[in-house]
Amino acid sequence: MSISASEPDDCVSAGELSARYDNFVVDLLGSIAYGELSAFERLATDARHSPSLSDRAVLGKMAVAEFGHYEAMCARLVEMGMDPELAMAPYQRMVDSFHERTRPADWHESLMKAYVVEAITEEFYAAIAERLDESTREAVAKVRTSDEQLQELTTLLKKMLAQDPRLSSRLALWGRRLVGEALTQVQRIGAKHSFLMGLRADATQEQAAADIATILSTLTRNHSRRMSQLGLTA
Amino acid sequence: MSISASEPDDCVSAGELSARYDNFVVDLLGSIAYGELSAFERLATDARHSPSLSDRAVLGKMAVAEFGHYEAMCARLVEMGMDPELAMAPYQRMVDSFHERTRPADWHESLMKAYVVEAITEEFYAAIAERLDESTREAVAKVRTSDEQLQELTTLLKKMLAQDPRLSSRLALWGRRLVGEALTQVQRIGAKHSFLMGLRADATQEQAAADIATILSTLTRNHSRRMSQLGLTA
Repeated sequence: MSISASEPDDCVSAGELSARYDNFVVDLLGSIAYGELSAFERLATDARHSPSLSDRAVLGKMAVAEFGHYEAMCARLVEMGMDPELAMAPYQRMVDSFHERTRPADWHESLMKAYVVEAITEEFYAAIAERLDESTREAVAKVRTSDEQLQELTTLLKKMLAQDPRLSSRLALWGRRLVGEALTQVQRIGAKHSFLMGLRADATQEQAAADIATILSTLTRNHSRRMSQLGLTA
Repeated sequence: MSISASEPDDCVSAGELSARYDNFVVDLLGSIAYGELSAFERLATDARHSPSLSDRAVLGKMAVAEFGHYEAMCARLVEMGMDPELAMAPYQRMVDSFHERTRPADWHESLMKAYVVEAITEEFYAAIAERLDESTREAVAKVRTSDEQLQELTTLLKKMLAQDPRLSSRLALWGRRLVGEALTQVQRIGAKHSFLMGLRADATQEQAAADIATILSTLTRNHSRRMSQLGLTA
């Protein structure tokens, strides 16, 4: 436990720490649940822009998987005796506003958004979950886009970029905007809710902030790697 | 086989009849597949209008089921050696235009549309499938909204109508518009593609038209019964 005198809540009882941890887990699961429910709806909507019916099903299938993740998070919250609706509510406005700010203009941007945002989101969840208890970690581990789906997305994006090389600069720019918005979102959610302090029950604010900084830099590095795989500059 | 001299294609060989039947089945499965894919996307989009997060999941869950139906139809088409995309293509414009004409203005209308349109569509498929070979019938039988989901929808609609009695007349009107559009759609698809002639390999046009008329009147009767269950006039 921290002994820095500058923080008003440095001295907390084990009970308070445990309550704080539980709140954190509920916050995390609530934010994942709402994020997945929104991703389901947005992907299903974006799927309509696809040029062919078989392409359309690629985003549709991802959407269906997101709904499964949403249900799994709700089930875990119910197991913990929590109301999923109450747990999700604080995140609704922020997540909706993220999607409003990153509304794809066409099919190319829709695919790119699915590729960039799903990957970052899931890595963020996984990085947080690594630091948590086993059952939470297991629950969060289920929130993964299948390798097969990611492969399908990558193949479609590569095909698209090969067919129209002028797309590269537009999509590289769009990718940068998406990652910027996604990382801002992650920080905003972290700052507003108990993410920063909750990561480790006995962490100081400084340690927690350092944890978040490490996670963000890993997310950024992985994003750059994925963009390179498409032949785009991050 | 019909012997009416007025029809140019009354005398057809067994091979032609079999080819006509196969075309009919492909048409039917293609129209169901595209209808379900669209329903998936529309329900997922409409879900966003819901007043609460748990209500939102009701349409979401239905949407996910529709996607499963779409996949089942595609799998059956592939089994038959057909390209699902080609089989769906002729229905795209008609189905999209149906959804444009019946775009719900709010959550109440979204729920009502799900209730009215799903039921009619599935009864139509089932009625057609009754007249077909066993493996097609089995494939089409899987395209059913679960009783549990229908029950959830009915409960939500009843609660909504009880809370705001002024809704009754608006939703009764909306229900009539939906059923009108849905039945027009059924007839249009039937007329344009081989549904009318394909129902029975040896049917005359008159017999096939009578079959369709029987189906339509059953659909209308069942719709009225469902509206009465909600306390609405059909």
